[in-house]
Amino acid sequence: MSHVTPTPLLKTDEYWMARAVQLAARGRYTTSPNPRVGCVIVKNNQAIGEGYHIQAGTPHAEVHALRAAGDNAAGATAYVTLEPCSHTGRTPPCAEALVTAQVARVVVAMTDPNPQVSGRGIARLEAAGIAVTQGVLTQQAKALNPGFIKRMETGLPWVRVKLASSLDGKIALANGNSQWITGPAARRDVQRFRAQSCAIITGSGTVSKDEPSLLVRPEQARITDYPLAIVRQPLRVVIDSQQQLSPQRQMFNDGHPVLLVNSHVQTGFAAAVEQFTAPHSPAGKTDLNAVLSELGSRGINELWVEGGAGLAGAFISAGLVDELIIYQAPKLLGDKGLSMVNLPGYEQVNEAPHLKLIDIRHIAQDIRLTYQWVTDGS
Amino acid sequence: MSHVTPTPLLKTDEYWMARAVQLAARGRYTTSPNPRVGCVIVKNNQAIGEGYHIQAGTPHAEVHALRAAGDNAAGATAYVTLEPCSHTGRTPPCAEALVTAQVARVVVAMTDPNPQVSGRGIARLEAAGIAVTQGVLTQQAKALNPGFIKRMETGLPWVRVKLASSLDGKIALANGNSQWITGPAARRDVQRFRAQSCAIITGSGTVSKDEPSLLVRPEQARITDYPLAIVRQPLRVVIDSQQQLSPQRQMFNDGHPVLLVNSHVQTGFAAAVEQFTAPHSPAGKTDLNAVLSELGSRGINELWVEGGAGLAGAFISAGLVDELIIYQAPKLLGDKGLSMVNLPGYEQVNEAPHLKLIDIRHIAQDIRLTYQWVTDGS
Repeated sequence: MSHVTPTPLLKTDEYWMARAVQLAARGRYTTSPNPRVGCVIVKNNQAIGEGYHIQAGTPHAEVHALRAAGDNAAGATAYVTLEPCSHTGRTPPCAEALVTAQVARVVVAMTDPNPQVSGRGIARLEAAGIAVTQGVLTQQAKALNPGFIKRMETGLPWVRVKLASSLDGKIALANGNSQWITGPAARRDVQRFRAQSCAIITGSGTVSKDEPSLLVRPEQARITDYPLAIVRQPLRVVIDSQQQLSPQRQMFNDGHPVLLVNSHVQTGFAAAVEQFTAPHSPAGKTDLNAVLSELGSRGINELWVEGGAGLAGAFISAGLVDELIIYQAPKLLGDKGLSMVNLPGYEQVNEAPHLKLIDIRHIAQDIRLTYQWVTDGS
Repeated sequence: MSHVTPTPLLKTDEYWMARAVQLAARGRYTTSPNPRVGCVIVKNNQAIGEGYHIQAGTPHAEVHALRAAGDNAAGATAYVTLEPCSHTGRTPPCAEALVTAQVARVVVAMTDPNPQVSGRGIARLEAAGIAVTQGVLTQQAKALNPGFIKRMETGLPWVRVKLASSLDGKIALANGNSQWITGPAARRDVQRFRAQSCAIITGSGTVSKDEPSLLVRPEQARITDYPLAIVRQPLRVVIDSQQQLSPQRQMFNDGHPVLLVNSHVQTGFAAAVEQFTAPHSPAGKTDLNAVLSELGSRGINELWVEGGAGLAGAFISAGLVDELIIYQAPKLLGDKGLSMVNLPGYEQVNEAPHLKLIDIRHIAQDIRLTYQWVTDGS
């Protein structure tokens, strides 16, 4: 590491950045493939402009906030959750807009996660004589965009595997019945995760058995303050290695896009169904790494895995999961039920995947457990 | 309900009763078959005597507290977590001692749970002109003695089933390996539950496979403030319906008592092994109701069930469980592992047992979930 002179932080910096984070979160369901970003312009300890990014192709957070502040922005401090962009994309560069507005200081929570461009926005501001403070509420800012950050750094989406199980780890009875293990509040919570995901992936088994739509049901999600006229639907991805699903399946014919992952192109599907022929193992298993790369190249930041024990186990065994989210109901389905996740047979407990609990909360009578992967063997 | 004139409560009553509850809890590991009871004598807003019951056959909480207070007890208020006894057992009645000491007022958290004698202690105090206040911190006082209360009311012990599982509900790998699913802190916590239990019950399968001692290991339990010279060992109960266990098993020969439950009396066991021949179903299953009755008649307040998926399932299916305590480790053992609890095959999810989460906490990297049974179908 190069030598860094610590920048003295004002207490008010955290205060205003927290507001910017709060604003950024309003874009939770809508900004992809762009990141969620919030901005507050502050002068004389008053917010004179606020903004957040709503949707790709529309103005960035800084532009909204600067417009609200008007000429008053001159000499003010701008708080931004992500380093202002320095390139002209579908909108002009925000660093330039801040320079033009003659703000005196910019506080940035985190630099651009794309290593190719990181630091350029800050350099542009500093070159214009604007004081820049970095590192304020960095963790909170990063938590806004796990998917965008991972995709910028690796080309792959952030992968969340969701399972709904009984207390004894069963996702269905022996006869396949799984209605309803978890309660309505948990299902509502799932809707919100679906809505914030850029894509939802499932397997042919789940499609055959449940005929799910995998669409976000806005009335069930109860999303408040949604800034667009209609709820954005995530891309639905279906893994069908063995070409088992007929083009007549409901979800292939509801007009919403589907990406069908198979081992060779098939005919007879509706126009909304795009096919992606992925490499397969000799045993006929889809190469999930290739699927994730494809999704990353399509701008998918957050991927929601909502299938059965087979698909969950395949992602876990391949080491491709970032978060495991379990909705655990206070029920016991017994040893004859279907287990939550299919994994290889282990000889020793320490060979089995071990995780780290990062969040736990009540969802009415159920609990939601969020685990991340432990990769250092600790 | 009869008409009850509400007794005005002083805020200080809760304060001093909380102290009495705290004192009572010191008897957690030692008082059985007696209840845990604490007492504080208060005069001029100062505690002038404190006491708690330590062990059956030794003085009750009130006696300890009155001795500490001495003549000063005259005119004082006594706070007791349980209605003072009115009968002469191995020690003289405490109600009488309070009368003799001329206390002015007695505050009682709960009445005697034995419906046959409930209220007699209070009646004795009132007959002597002592003011009695009831119902202060009743829930907290009840929580001290779930087993004693249940036994007084039903003749049966309070049954806690303990399971240690992975996140996906497995208690061992397919090869039976279960070392170590949970961490050392969880195992320490189990030791404390063992230590507070009057009896620990297991099955022949667990004895065959693990050769457990089921003794409390004081160094592992890290029990502080233990008021006796040696840690009291719970009675070990082994269900062996099929007479599969040989008298040579380690736990039958360590000198500590065992109650062996079988279908007919066997020879060759050490003197410390007592046999209880329980009724069996035509299929050869032990009648667990009969076992619980026997344990209740032996003064067992709290029973700790620490076996495999079969024993846990048998207790659950028979509707005999009061609490299910699950130590859940952040690991995934996969579908080939052994499931947590054997239950009948259900056709619908709503036929399966459903529980109510009453406590959840981190135990180092694991979590401990405490469930009680939902009996009203809600």
